[in-house]
Amino acid sequence: MNLLLLFDEDFLPDGTARLTGRRAQHAREVLRAEPGESLRVGRLGGLIGTGEVLENTPGVLHLRATLTEPPPPRAGIDLLLAIPRPKALKKVLPALASLGVDRIVLVNAARVEKSYFDSKVLDGAFVRDLLLQGLEQARDTHLPEVLVRERFRPFVEDELDAVFPTSAARLLPHPPATQPLRAVAAAAGQRSVLAIGPDGGWVSFEAQLLESHGFRPFSLGPRILRVETAVPVLVGQVALLAEDNAPRQDASRA
Amino acid sequence: MNLLLLFDEDFLPDGTARLTGRRAQHAREVLRAEPGESLRVGRLGGLIGTGEVLENTPGVLHLRATLTEPPPPRAGIDLLLAIPRPKALKKVLPALASLGVDRIVLVNAARVEKSYFDSKVLDGAFVRDLLLQGLEQARDTHLPEVLVRERFRPFVEDELDAVFPTSAARLLPHPPATQPLRAVAAAAGQRSVLAIGPDGGWVSFEAQLLESHGFRPFSLGPRILRVETAVPVLVGQVALLAEDNAPRQDASRA
Repeated sequence: MNLLLLFDEDFLPDGTARLTGRRAQHAREVLRAEPGESLRVGRLGGLIGTGEVLENTPGVLHLRATLTEPPPPRAGIDLLLAIPRPKALKKVLPALASLGVDRIVLVNAARVEKSYFDSKVLDGAFVRDLLLQGLEQARDTHLPEVLVRERFRPFVEDELDAVFPTSAARLLPHPPATQPLRAVAAAAGQRSVLAIGPDGGWVSFEAQLLESHGFRPFSLGPRILRVETAVPVLVGQVALLAEDNAPRQDASRA
Repeated sequence: MNLLLLFDEDFLPDGTARLTGRRAQHAREVLRAEPGESLRVGRLGGLIGTGEVLENTPGVLHLRATLTEPPPPRAGIDLLLAIPRPKALKKVLPALASLGVDRIVLVNAARVEKSYFDSKVLDGAFVRDLLLQGLEQARDTHLPEVLVRERFRPFVEDELDAVFPTSAARLLPHPPATQPLRAVAAAAGQRSVLAIGPDGGWVSFEAQLLESHGFRPFSLGPRILRVETAVPVLVGQVALLAEDNAPRQDASRA
């Protein structure tokens, strides 16, 4: 934990914050924060800064926060992600939060096992907890929004344009494609939406429907990656290209 | 498993292959391969192709392999990696194999917990098994080489240049740096070596020693990533830039 997150409900009328539960326990047992010491804190959805420990007794951490700095800039990336197997989702959600992704739609697909919908990993509280872990790791305060959609086609046909602005570059990693990511990447200042299929990939009906809704296919190369590897690889590459295409480009090319 | 790997010792004098253990069990229980059917197979260190199932009884898979295609091209990337916590290493090793990394030196560092050296994850057979999983996933046959070094400084001072050719671009993701990866990335056709520190980063002595041995620091941005997220992000970005810098560049820029 690189940042202790404070929630609105932690704040007392006098402006200090009173934390209980896991965070208080972590501050006591791992950080061993003594009164007078400062911890790095951030307010969920707000600024980051320092928290002076006023009291740290078993189960209760009382601190005075001074929040002055903005959290890291956003990645400008959203995800349409076929629901991965629960074990992969537990890795992917914290990673996505730590990478600064804004919106994640977890969608059903032909190669998604039906049993995944019964997984507790898709439960709202569990999802939120995984995302908070990613924020604490990356010192971010902006909670990604996660939507779960059980029907692929109605989502794409009826909701896609409302959830992902049509102004974004729509990117579809899909093995039959030959052009590289570079050829379809976002222009300067443009957002990106990545549509990442399940292990085994999108079936052709799904890929075609996405293409007919503006998603441009590109090749990931001949290597087939597990979703928990493909997600950070792709988000990292899309972020790198967006940075390259940004107007304030002062990096010399090696 | 997207590729069934065959080892030299599987091959019989008549050129057919006889597999036992986990692979035979997988072929029987998951792939349900019947005699006459073909499986995608590859010979460790060699070509890939198809394997016609001759017999698939409990515990024994007998097949005739026709190996004609080369495995995917190498990424041209090596890693100097501070030993991650065992849980992270179990994720990172298959990912590195699936990404086509050639050589991985797992090195001690100031922020590596001493207990990690006692972990079974560092055991040769366990490491090999994790790497094979990555190859099976990515349909590759080239096993990365893994070295474990318990002393950071002697490795860097005495072994580094022999293990990682000095002709490679030496890259050091390190938070105090300001220049982006783009500014230090490999030129066309050049290999890259990435030196990825532990959670918490390299201490300054380590970063300075690496810099004095030609590693060029670059910034990952303000987000602090877990090693299992940072590794695929960085390998993906280095691979993307190497592709961009490659001579046969036919991608139009968006």
